[in-house]
Amino acid sequence: MQIFNNPQELQQYVLSQKRKGQLFSLVPTMGFLHKGHISLMHQAKVYANNVIVSIFVNPTQFAPNEDLDKYPRDFEGDEKKCKDAGVDIIFYPSNESIYPADYQTFVNVEKVSQNLCGASRPHHFQGVTTVVAKLFNICLPDYAFFGEKDFQQLTVIKRMTKDLNFPIEIIPVPTFREDDGLAMSSRNKYLKGKEREDALVLYKSIKRVSELFSRGERNVSLLLSEAQKIISSTPLAYIDYIKIVDIETMNDVDFITKDSLFALAVKIGSTRLIDNCKLLLTKGEKDV
Amino acid sequence: MQIFNNPQELQQYVLSQKRKGQLFSLVPTMGFLHKGHISLMHQAKVYANNVIVSIFVNPTQFAPNEDLDKYPRDFEGDEKKCKDAGVDIIFYPSNESIYPADYQTFVNVEKVSQNLCGASRPHHFQGVTTVVAKLFNICLPDYAFFGEKDFQQLTVIKRMTKDLNFPIEIIPVPTFREDDGLAMSSRNKYLKGKEREDALVLYKSIKRVSELFSRGERNVSLLLSEAQKIISSTPLAYIDYIKIVDIETMNDVDFITKDSLFALAVKIGSTRLIDNCKLLLTKGEKDV
Repeated sequence: MQIFNNPQELQQYVLSQKRKGQLFSLVPTMGFLHKGHISLMHQAKVYANNVIVSIFVNPTQFAPNEDLDKYPRDFEGDEKKCKDAGVDIIFYPSNESIYPADYQTFVNVEKVSQNLCGASRPHHFQGVTTVVAKLFNICLPDYAFFGEKDFQQLTVIKRMTKDLNFPIEIIPVPTFREDDGLAMSSRNKYLKGKEREDALVLYKSIKRVSELFSRGERNVSLLLSEAQKIISSTPLAYIDYIKIVDIETMNDVDFITKDSLFALAVKIGSTRLIDNCKLLLTKGEKDV
Repeated sequence: MQIFNNPQELQQYVLSQKRKGQLFSLVPTMGFLHKGHISLMHQAKVYANNVIVSIFVNPTQFAPNEDLDKYPRDFEGDEKKCKDAGVDIIFYPSNESIYPADYQTFVNVEKVSQNLCGASRPHHFQGVTTVVAKLFNICLPDYAFFGEKDFQQLTVIKRMTKDLNFPIEIIPVPTFREDDGLAMSSRNKYLKGKEREDALVLYKSIKRVSELFSRGERNVSLLLSEAQKIISSTPLAYIDYIKIVDIETMNDVDFITKDSLFALAVKIGSTRLIDNCKLLLTKGEKDV
């Protein structure tokens, strides 16, 4: 396994390999790797012989009041996990090499980034799309892997990739969960004492909404009020948003007549967690 | 010479050639090709065996009040000129294939795009950077060629290429002029009757400013007032801007202490023309 810190050196290396016909997979991460990331790496290896994992806590996707400084980091642990997962290259750049002095170019995806996390975190997706565009150009992958836990992020990146014609296939990977259902996230590390159990309200509300949906419920306010009840039962849980949106446009819907997404962001104490589940119509319903 | 209309087909073709080690040059144009474009094509062939010329009148870089609809077009003439210049591929896409329904991603270069044409044409450079990012990803060139006539555009694109880490070398090509000094531009076609002669005020003011600069004049208001005198002598010439800026940042300067650019935009009747010249300090001056 090779480790690259310098963007230009990695780019030159990948270019030279691609001229020989080699294929590359990219798994962009902010490090502090968990089993969700590992499942992305395993997928990545299925698609291409060369797997690059980038580890970069991207400052432009954090607002000043957010957790950039305390975001958990453990490069040595990450290195070992990558090696064990069969990763070929770690890209671990400095902030200065990604955003040199006088940096001034940003990529914006206008519509699908507005709702959900985009509404709660106004500049978040501009930071995400900008750094992912840069990672795409540095690592020049044929395939790039993103977890469905950050479903809106996946949607925004798919949109950017298509709109800007990046020659890259975006592969979504299902959310990886703890045994009790909590979605894997580096931020789970913040949960202290009872908060870990309280955090299960996200998964419980997902299960409840899924179940009602599969029994035929299509009324969004009814589905959301059921989820809200579950979350309200935990005094320490504060709802940032809880929504059902069109799975393509990320726009709110009142009644589910297209494939949709139930998505929520909930603060457990001071830790903001997100989760989601797809609400896919049956073939019969779609044909109507 | 091959002609591609479909972005995906061209991208797949280039990818397959690059896997065999082939190199590509790109000359992005809006068509109605003149000798300036041809000189870009000749340069392009020096750098790579495969030259792609894109011909696309990009709607997103025109404001509603501008000349998108009447912008001159002549695909058959362009095709012949490309063939004669040894071009390998023309990329001639439809608007719909570049901006499909629900298109929503834009690239912004924030600082160097603010002054000069960016001030006169507020969304112009967002349109330029977005379409050039797309052309870069579709055509995947190793080298891309831009004329110095649009010096700010060249600066904005160099900045985008560096900031977003495109693996592409941007090659500037000197302005190509008519025998009397008028900078080649597809918009020169708009000039009617006496306007063609009036249009020489741009070149005359450049010559005057260059001459004073080379004699040691560094005071910007003095240099600009000399240029202004020349332009004011022509009743049909209306100054949009006339400026001296830092050649790197594109910011106004009062006194020339760094390499600078004299740039102007002048309307001759209803035709807006731009031109510029570099004001480069002597080595001795720089060392001070």
